[in-house]
Amino acid sequence: MNTPPVFGDAFREELATLMAWRRDVRRFRSEPVPPALLDELLGLMALSPSVGHAQPWRVSRIDEAERRAAVQASFARCNAAALAEYEGERAALYARLKLEGLREAPVQLAVFCDEGTARGHGLGRRTMPETLAYSVVAAITQFWLAARAHGVGVGWVSILEPEEIARIAGAPPDWRLIAYLCVGYPQEASAVPELVREGWEGG
Amino acid sequence: MNTPPVFGDAFREELATLMAWRRDVRRFRSEPVPPALLDELLGLMALSPSVGHAQPWRVSRIDEAERRAAVQASFARCNAAALAEYEGERAALYARLKLEGLREAPVQLAVFCDEGTARGHGLGRRTMPETLAYSVVAAITQFWLAARAHGVGVGWVSILEPEEIARIAGAPPDWRLIAYLCVGYPQEASAVPELVREGWEGG
Repeated sequence: MNTPPVFGDAFREELATLMAWRRDVRRFRSEPVPPALLDELLGLMALSPSVGHAQPWRVSRIDEAERRAAVQASFARCNAAALAEYEGERAALYARLKLEGLREAPVQLAVFCDEGTARGHGLGRRTMPETLAYSVVAAITQFWLAARAHGVGVGWVSILEPEEIARIAGAPPDWRLIAYLCVGYPQEASAVPELVREGWEGG
Repeated sequence: MNTPPVFGDAFREELATLMAWRRDVRRFRSEPVPPALLDELLGLMALSPSVGHAQPWRVSRIDEAERRAAVQASFARCNAAALAEYEGERAALYARLKLEGLREAPVQLAVFCDEGTARGHGLGRRTMPETLAYSVVAAITQFWLAARAHGVGVGWVSILEPEEIARIAGAPPDWRLIAYLCVGYPQEASAVPELVREGWEGG
Protein backbone atom coordinates (compact mmCIF):
# COMPACT_ATOMS: atom_id res chain seq x y z
CA MET A 1 0.00 0.00 0.00
CA ASN A 2 1.40 3.36 -0.98
CA THR A 3 0.88 6.65 0.78
CA PRO A 4 -0.76 9.17 -1.54
CA PRO A 5 1.41 12.25 -1.92
CA VAL A 6 0.48 15.70 -0.67
CA PHE A 7 1.77 18.59 -2.72
CA GLY A 8 3.00 21.84 -1.22
CA ASP A 9 2.83 25.49 -2.16
CA ALA A 10 6.28 25.54 -3.74
CA PHE A 11 5.38 22.73 -6.13
CA ARG A 12 2.03 24.30 -6.96
CA GLU A 13 3.69 27.58 -7.81
CA GLU A 14 6.21 25.88 -10.05
CA LEU A 15 3.42 23.90 -11.73
CA ALA A 16 1.61 27.16 -12.49
CA THR A 17 4.88 28.54 -13.89
CA LEU A 18 5.23 25.44 -16.07
CA MET A 19 1.73 25.88 -17.46
CA ALA A 20 2.39 29.54 -18.16
CA TRP A 21 5.67 28.81 -19.97
CA ARG A 22 4.66 25.73 -21.92
CA ARG A 23 4.58 27.08 -25.45
CA ASP A 24 4.00 25.81 -28.94
CA VAL A 25 7.61 25.60 -30.13
CA ARG A 26 8.34 26.06 -33.83
CA ARG A 27 12.12 26.45 -34.06
CA PHE A 28 14.35 23.64 -32.91
CA ARG A 29 18.06 23.03 -32.48
CA SER A 30 19.37 20.00 -34.32
CA GLU A 31 20.84 18.23 -31.30
CA PRO A 32 19.08 14.96 -30.51
CA VAL A 33 16.81 14.32 -27.57
CA PRO A 34 18.41 11.55 -25.50
CA PRO A 35 16.49 8.30 -26.09
CA ALA A 36 16.16 7.64 -22.34
CA LEU A 37 14.55 11.05 -21.87
CA LEU A 38 12.14 10.48 -24.75
CA ASP A 39 11.18 7.14 -23.20
CA GLU A 40 10.61 8.84 -19.86
CA LEU A 41 8.35 11.45 -21.46
CA LEU A 42 6.37 8.79 -23.31
CA GLY A 43 6.03 6.90 -20.04
CA LEU A 44 4.52 9.97 -18.38
CA MET A 45 2.21 10.40 -21.36
CA ALA A 46 0.94 6.88 -20.73
CA LEU A 47 -0.06 7.76 -17.16
CA SER A 48 -2.81 9.89 -18.63
CA PRO A 49 -6.50 9.36 -17.90
CA SER A 50 -8.40 7.44 -20.57
CA VAL A 51 -12.05 6.60 -20.95
CA GLY A 52 -12.75 3.17 -19.46
CA HIS A 53 -8.95 2.82 -19.15
CA ALA A 54 -8.84 2.14 -22.87
CA GLN A 55 -5.31 3.62 -23.22
CA PRO A 56 -5.84 4.14 -26.95
CA TRP A 57 -2.69 6.20 -27.64
CA ARG A 58 -0.30 4.89 -30.29
CA VAL A 59 2.87 6.75 -31.22
CA SER A 60 4.85 6.35 -34.43
CA ARG A 61 8.20 8.01 -34.80
CA ILE A 62 8.85 9.53 -38.22
CA ASP A 63 12.61 9.53 -38.75
CA GLU A 64 13.54 8.78 -42.36
CA ALA A 65 14.20 11.73 -44.66
CA GLU A 66 11.83 10.31 -47.25
CA ARG A 67 8.93 10.05 -44.84
CA ARG A 68 9.61 13.50 -43.43
CA ALA A 69 9.60 14.93 -46.95
CA ALA A 70 6.21 13.31 -47.53
CA VAL A 71 4.89 14.96 -44.35
CA GLN A 72 6.21 18.33 -45.51
CA ALA A 73 4.56 17.80 -48.88
CA SER A 74 1.25 17.16 -47.14
CA PHE A 75 1.74 20.34 -45.13
CA ALA A 76 2.54 22.31 -48.30
CA ARG A 77 -0.67 21.12 -50.00
CA CYS A 78 -2.84 21.99 -46.99
CA ASN A 79 -1.13 25.26 -46.49
CA ALA A 80 -1.58 26.42 -50.06
CA ALA A 81 -5.29 25.78 -49.68
CA ALA A 82 -5.38 27.54 -46.32
CA LEU A 83 -3.51 30.61 -47.49
CA ALA A 84 -5.97 31.00 -50.32
CA GLU A 85 -8.64 31.48 -47.64
CA TYR A 86 -6.83 33.70 -45.19
CA GLU A 87 -5.28 36.97 -46.01
CA GLY A 88 -2.45 38.83 -44.47
CA GLU A 89 0.91 38.24 -42.96
CA ARG A 90 -0.35 36.52 -39.86
CA ALA A 91 -1.41 33.34 -41.64
CA ALA A 92 1.75 33.29 -43.75
CA LEU A 93 3.96 33.73 -40.71
CA TYR A 94 2.09 31.00 -38.84
CA ALA A 95 2.57 28.60 -41.72
CA ARG A 96 6.23 29.44 -42.27
CA LEU A 97 7.08 28.82 -38.62
CA LYS A 98 5.24 25.50 -38.57
CA LEU A 99 7.07 24.38 -41.71
CA GLU A 100 10.41 25.26 -40.12
CA GLY A 101 9.50 22.98 -37.24
CA LEU A 102 8.80 20.13 -39.66
CA ARG A 103 12.18 20.69 -41.31
CA GLU A 104 14.25 21.04 -38.15
CA ALA A 105 12.73 19.08 -35.27
CA PRO A 106 15.01 16.12 -34.46
CA VAL A 107 12.11 14.02 -33.14
CA GLN A 108 8.78 13.85 -34.95
CA LEU A 109 5.90 11.81 -33.62
CA ALA A 110 2.64 10.92 -35.30
CA VAL A 111 0.18 10.27 -32.48
CA PHE A 112 -2.86 8.12 -33.20
CA CYS A 113 -6.01 6.92 -31.49
CA ASP A 114 -6.57 3.18 -31.88
CA GLU A 115 -10.29 3.14 -32.55
CA GLY A 116 -10.24 -0.63 -32.77
CA THR A 117 -8.87 -1.23 -29.30
CA ALA A 118 -10.83 -3.76 -27.27
CA ARG A 119 -9.27 -2.48 -24.09
CA GLY A 120 -11.80 -0.72 -21.89
CA HIS A 121 -14.62 -2.77 -23.43
CA GLY A 122 -16.24 0.43 -24.67
CA LEU A 123 -17.01 1.48 -21.10
CA GLY A 124 -18.01 5.10 -20.80
CA ARG A 125 -17.93 5.90 -24.49
CA ARG A 126 -21.26 4.74 -25.79
CA THR A 127 -22.97 8.14 -26.00
CA MET A 128 -19.76 10.14 -26.50
CA PRO A 129 -17.48 7.93 -28.62
CA GLU A 130 -15.22 10.91 -29.27
CA THR A 131 -13.93 10.52 -25.68
CA LEU A 132 -11.60 7.82 -27.00
CA ALA A 133 -9.80 10.43 -29.12
CA TYR A 134 -9.97 12.88 -26.21
CA SER A 135 -8.00 10.38 -24.11
CA VAL A 136 -5.16 10.69 -26.59
CA VAL A 137 -5.28 14.49 -26.40
CA ALA A 138 -5.00 14.31 -22.60
CA ALA A 139 -1.94 12.09 -23.01
CA ILE A 140 -0.38 14.55 -25.46
CA THR A 141 -0.97 17.38 -22.99
CA GLN A 142 0.87 15.46 -20.27
CA PHE A 143 3.72 14.73 -22.68
CA TRP A 144 3.91 18.43 -23.56
CA LEU A 145 4.07 19.60 -19.95
CA ALA A 146 6.61 16.93 -18.98
CA ALA A 147 8.76 17.81 -22.00
CA ARG A 148 8.80 21.50 -21.09
CA ALA A 149 9.82 20.62 -17.52
CA HIS A 150 12.87 18.95 -19.09
CA GLY A 151 13.62 21.93 -21.35
CA VAL A 152 12.33 20.06 -24.41
CA GLY A 153 9.99 21.94 -26.73
CA VAL A 154 6.92 20.53 -28.48
CA GLY A 155 5.05 21.95 -31.46
CA TRP A 156 1.68 20.56 -32.57
CA VAL A 157 1.19 20.66 -36.34
CA SER A 158 -2.41 20.26 -37.53
CA ILE A 159 -2.13 21.66 -41.06
CA LEU A 160 -1.84 18.15 -42.48
CA GLU A 161 -3.92 15.52 -44.25
CA PRO A 162 -4.70 12.96 -41.51
CA GLU A 163 -5.12 9.99 -43.88
CA GLU A 164 -1.89 10.80 -45.68
CA ILE A 165 0.05 10.98 -42.40
CA ALA A 166 -1.43 7.62 -41.40
CA ARG A 167 -0.25 6.20 -44.70
CA ILE A 168 3.25 7.64 -44.27
CA ALA A 169 3.42 6.21 -40.75
CA GLY A 170 2.25 2.81 -41.93
CA ALA A 171 -0.60 2.93 -39.42
CA PRO A 172 -3.20 0.14 -39.30
CA PRO A 173 -6.66 1.06 -40.63
CA ASP A 174 -8.10 1.57 -37.13
CA TRP A 175 -5.59 4.23 -36.16
CA ARG A 176 -6.85 7.79 -36.49
CA LEU A 177 -4.38 10.67 -36.49
CA ILE A 178 -4.77 12.96 -33.49
CA ALA A 179 -1.58 15.03 -33.68
CA TYR A 180 1.74 15.39 -35.41
CA LEU A 181 4.31 16.56 -32.88
CA CYS A 182 7.65 18.23 -33.51
CA VAL A 183 9.93 17.64 -30.54
CA GLY A 184 13.39 18.95 -29.69
CA TYR A 185 15.38 21.56 -27.83
CA PRO A 186 14.12 25.04 -28.74
CA GLN A 187 16.40 27.41 -30.64
CA GLU A 188 15.56 30.08 -28.18
CA ALA A 189 13.57 29.97 -24.99
CA SER A 190 10.34 31.88 -25.35
CA ALA A 191 10.64 35.18 -23.54
CA VAL A 192 6.90 35.54 -23.19
CA PRO A 193 4.65 33.46 -20.95
CA GLU A 194 1.07 32.67 -21.84
CA LEU A 195 -1.30 35.42 -20.80
CA VAL A 196 -4.12 34.56 -18.50
CA ARG A 197 -7.04 34.19 -20.83
CA GLU A 198 -10.70 33.50 -21.00
CA GLY A 199 -11.66 30.31 -19.26
CA TRP A 200 -14.71 30.98 -17.26
CA GLU A 201 -18.11 31.82 -18.56
CA GLY A 202 -19.57 31.76 -15.07
CA GLY A 203 -23.10 30.90 -14.20
CA MET B 1 11.13 40.95 -20.80
CA ASN B 2 10.84 37.92 -18.60
CA THR B 3 13.44 35.27 -18.00
CA PRO B 4 12.13 31.86 -19.02
CA PRO B 5 12.19 29.47 -16.09
CA VAL B 6 14.43 26.43 -15.85
CA PHE B 7 13.01 23.49 -13.94
CA GLY B 8 15.09 21.27 -11.71
CA ASP B 9 15.14 17.59 -10.89
CA ALA B 10 13.10 17.96 -7.71
CA PHE B 11 10.24 19.61 -9.59
CA ARG B 12 10.41 17.08 -12.39
CA GLU B 13 10.16 14.22 -9.93
CA GLU B 14 7.20 15.79 -8.20
CA LEU B 15 5.52 16.40 -11.57
CA ALA B 16 5.92 12.71 -12.40
CA THR B 17 4.42 11.87 -9.00
CA LEU B 18 1.50 14.19 -9.75
CA MET B 19 0.84 12.49 -13.08
CA ALA B 20 1.01 9.07 -11.43
CA TRP B 21 -1.41 10.06 -8.68
CA ARG B 22 -3.91 12.07 -10.69
CA ARG B 23 -6.92 9.79 -10.66
CA ASP B 24 -10.48 9.81 -11.85
CA VAL B 25 -12.25 10.57 -8.57
CA ARG B 26 -15.77 9.27 -8.03
CA ARG B 27 -16.50 9.80 -4.34
CA PHE B 28 -16.46 13.29 -2.93
CA ARG B 29 -16.80 14.92 0.45
CA SER B 30 -19.54 17.53 0.67
CA GLU B 31 -17.35 20.42 1.81
CA PRO B 32 -17.16 23.20 -0.76
CA VAL B 33 -14.16 24.07 -2.88
CA PRO B 34 -13.16 27.64 -1.99
CA PRO B 35 -14.26 29.97 -4.81
CA ALA B 36 -10.81 31.57 -5.01
CA LEU B 37 -9.21 28.16 -5.52
CA LEU B 38 -11.73 27.24 -8.22
CA ASP B 39 -10.95 30.52 -9.98
CA GLU B 40 -7.24 29.77 -9.75
CA LEU B 41 -7.73 26.32 -11.28
CA LEU B 42 -9.86 27.73 -14.10
CA GLY B 43 -7.18 30.34 -14.69
CA LEU B 44 -4.57 27.60 -15.11
CA MET B 45 -6.93 25.75 -17.44
CA ALA B 46 -7.04 28.85 -19.60
CA LEU B 47 -3.24 28.82 -20.03
CA SER B 48 -3.66 25.72 -22.15
CA PRO B 49 -2.53 25.45 -25.76
CA SER B 50 -5.26 25.97 -28.35
CA VAL B 51 -5.25 25.69 -32.10
CA GLY B 52 -4.60 29.11 -33.67
CA HIS B 53 -4.99 30.51 -30.12
CA ALA B 54 -8.74 30.09 -30.50
CA GLN B 55 -9.26 29.52 -26.74
CA PRO B 56 -12.60 27.82 -27.39
CA TRP B 57 -13.23 26.53 -23.83
CA ARG B 58 -16.47 27.58 -22.15
CA VAL B 59 -17.37 26.40 -18.66
CA SER B 60 -20.85 26.34 -17.14
CA ARG B 61 -21.30 25.56 -13.50
CA ILE B 62 -24.29 23.34 -12.71
CA ASP B 63 -25.40 24.17 -9.19
CA GLU B 64 -29.18 24.05 -8.79
CA ALA B 65 -30.72 20.82 -7.50
CA GLU B 66 -33.17 20.76 -10.37
CA ARG B 67 -30.47 20.95 -13.04
CA ARG B 68 -28.35 18.36 -11.25
CA ALA B 69 -31.33 16.02 -11.13
CA ALA B 70 -31.76 16.46 -14.88
CA VAL B 71 -28.10 15.54 -15.41
CA GLN B 72 -28.54 12.42 -13.27
CA ALA B 73 -31.64 11.50 -15.26
CA SER B 74 -29.61 11.75 -18.47
CA PHE B 75 -26.95 9.54 -16.91
CA ALA B 76 -29.59 7.01 -15.84
CA ARG B 77 -31.01 6.79 -19.36
CA CYS B 78 -27.57 6.31 -20.95
CA ASN B 79 -26.52 3.87 -18.30
CA ALA B 80 -29.55 1.64 -18.69
CA ALA B 81 -28.76 1.39 -22.39
CA ALA B 82 -25.08 0.74 -21.70
CA LEU B 83 -25.70 -1.96 -19.10
CA ALA B 84 -27.90 -3.78 -21.56
CA GLU B 85 -24.81 -4.12 -23.76
CA TYR B 86 -22.18 -4.98 -21.18
CA GLU B 87 -22.36 -7.83 -18.82
CA GLY B 88 -20.86 -8.40 -15.47
CA GLU B 89 -20.13 -6.54 -12.31
CA ARG B 90 -17.42 -4.37 -13.74
CA ALA B 91 -19.75 -2.24 -15.84
CA ALA B 92 -22.29 -2.01 -13.02
CA LEU B 93 -19.65 -0.92 -10.52
CA TYR B 94 -18.26 1.63 -12.95
CA ALA B 95 -21.70 3.13 -13.43
CA ARG B 96 -22.59 3.13 -9.75
CA LEU B 97 -19.41 4.99 -8.81
CA LYS B 98 -19.93 7.59 -11.53
CA LEU B 99 -23.50 8.17 -10.36
CA GLU B 100 -22.29 8.69 -6.80
CA GLY B 101 -19.99 11.38 -8.10
CA LEU B 102 -22.91 13.14 -9.79
CA ARG B 103 -24.88 13.01 -6.53
CA GLU B 104 -22.11 14.14 -4.21
CA ALA B 105 -19.63 16.39 -5.99
CA PRO B 106 -19.98 19.93 -4.64
CA VAL B 107 -18.79 21.51 -7.89
CA GLN B 108 -20.04 20.28 -11.26
CA LEU B 109 -18.84 21.81 -14.49
CA ALA B 110 -20.16 21.31 -18.00
CA VAL B 111 -17.26 22.10 -20.31
CA PHE B 112 -18.00 23.09 -23.88
CA CYS B 113 -16.18 23.89 -27.10
CA ASP B 114 -17.42 27.07 -28.74
CA GLU B 115 -17.48 25.95 -32.35
CA GLY B 116 -18.68 29.37 -33.43
CA THR B 117 -15.73 31.29 -32.04
CA ALA B 118 -14.14 33.70 -34.47
CA ARG B 119 -11.02 33.86 -32.35
CA GLY B 120 -8.07 32.22 -34.06
CA HIS B 121 -9.60 32.96 -37.48
CA GLY B 122 -9.71 29.23 -38.19
CA LEU B 123 -5.91 29.11 -38.35
CA GLY B 124 -4.54 25.58 -38.20
CA ARG B 125 -7.86 23.81 -38.19
CA ARG B 126 -8.86 23.64 -41.80
CA THR B 127 -7.94 20.01 -42.46
CA MET B 128 -8.41 18.84 -38.87
CA PRO B 129 -11.35 20.85 -37.51
CA GLU B 130 -11.56 18.50 -34.53
CA THR B 131 -8.45 20.22 -33.13
CA LEU B 132 -10.77 22.93 -31.81
CA ALA B 133 -12.41 20.37 -29.49
CA TYR B 134 -8.97 18.93 -28.71
CA SER B 135 -7.92 22.34 -27.40
CA VAL B 136 -10.67 22.07 -24.79
CA VAL B 137 -9.49 18.59 -23.80
CA ALA B 138 -5.96 19.92 -23.27
CA ALA B 139 -7.40 22.64 -21.03
CA ILE B 140 -9.37 20.06 -19.02
CA THR B 141 -6.17 18.02 -18.57
CA GLN B 142 -4.38 21.06 -17.16
CA PHE B 143 -7.32 21.76 -14.84
CA TRP B 144 -7.24 18.14 -13.65
CA LEU B 145 -3.52 18.16 -12.87
CA ALA B 146 -3.68 21.55 -11.14
CA ALA B 147 -6.67 20.41 -9.07
CA ARG B 148 -4.86 17.29 -7.91
CA ALA B 149 -1.86 19.39 -6.90
CA HIS B 150 -4.26 21.25 -4.60
CA GLY B 151 -5.77 18.04 -3.22
CA VAL B 152 -8.96 18.56 -5.23
CA GLY B 153 -10.34 15.55 -7.10
CA VAL B 154 -11.86 15.54 -10.57
CA GLY B 155 -14.05 12.88 -12.19
CA TRP B 156 -14.92 12.99 -15.88
CA VAL B 157 -18.41 11.66 -16.64
CA SER B 158 -19.07 10.76 -20.26
CA ILE B 159 -22.13 8.52 -19.89
CA LEU B 160 -24.41 11.42 -20.74
CA GLU B 161 -26.46 12.78 -23.64
CA PRO B 162 -24.39 15.74 -24.90
CA GLU B 163 -27.33 17.67 -26.36
CA GLU B 164 -29.36 17.24 -23.19
CA ILE B 165 -26.50 18.52 -21.02
CA ALA B 166 -26.17 21.52 -23.32
CA ARG B 167 -29.88 22.18 -22.89
CA ILE B 168 -29.65 21.89 -19.10
CA ALA B 169 -26.69 24.27 -19.07
CA GLY B 170 -28.51 26.75 -21.27
CA ALA B 171 -25.63 26.64 -23.75
CA PRO B 172 -25.81 28.59 -27.03
CA PRO B 173 -26.29 26.46 -30.17
CA ASP B 174 -22.59 26.64 -31.12
CA TRP B 175 -21.39 25.12 -27.85
CA ARG B 176 -20.60 21.41 -28.04
CA LEU B 177 -20.24 19.40 -24.85
CA ILE B 178 -16.73 18.05 -24.31
CA ALA B 179 -16.89 16.90 -20.69
CA TYR B 180 -18.97 16.94 -17.55
CA LEU B 181 -16.66 17.26 -14.57
CA CYS B 182 -17.36 16.38 -10.95
CA VAL B 183 -15.04 18.38 -8.71
CA GLY B 184 -14.45 18.31 -4.96
CA TYR B 185 -12.32 16.96 -2.15
CA PRO B 186 -12.11 13.16 -2.42
CA GLN B 187 -13.67 11.01 0.30
CA GLU B 188 -10.48 9.05 0.46
CA ALA B 189 -7.17 9.55 -1.19
CA SER B 190 -6.49 6.86 -3.77
CA ALA B 191 -3.97 4.42 -2.38
CA VAL B 192 -2.94 3.22 -5.80
CA PRO B 193 -0.99 5.23 -8.36
CA GLU B 194 -1.46 4.77 -12.09
CA LEU B 195 0.64 1.94 -13.44
CA VAL B 196 3.04 2.68 -16.21
CA ARG B 197 1.18 1.58 -19.27
CA GLU B 198 1.41 1.24 -22.98
CA GLY B 199 2.41 4.44 -24.69
CA TRP B 200 4.94 3.60 -27.26
CA GLU B 201 4.44 1.56 -30.35
CA GLY B 202 7.98 2.21 -31.51
CA GLY B 203 8.99 2.56 -35.11
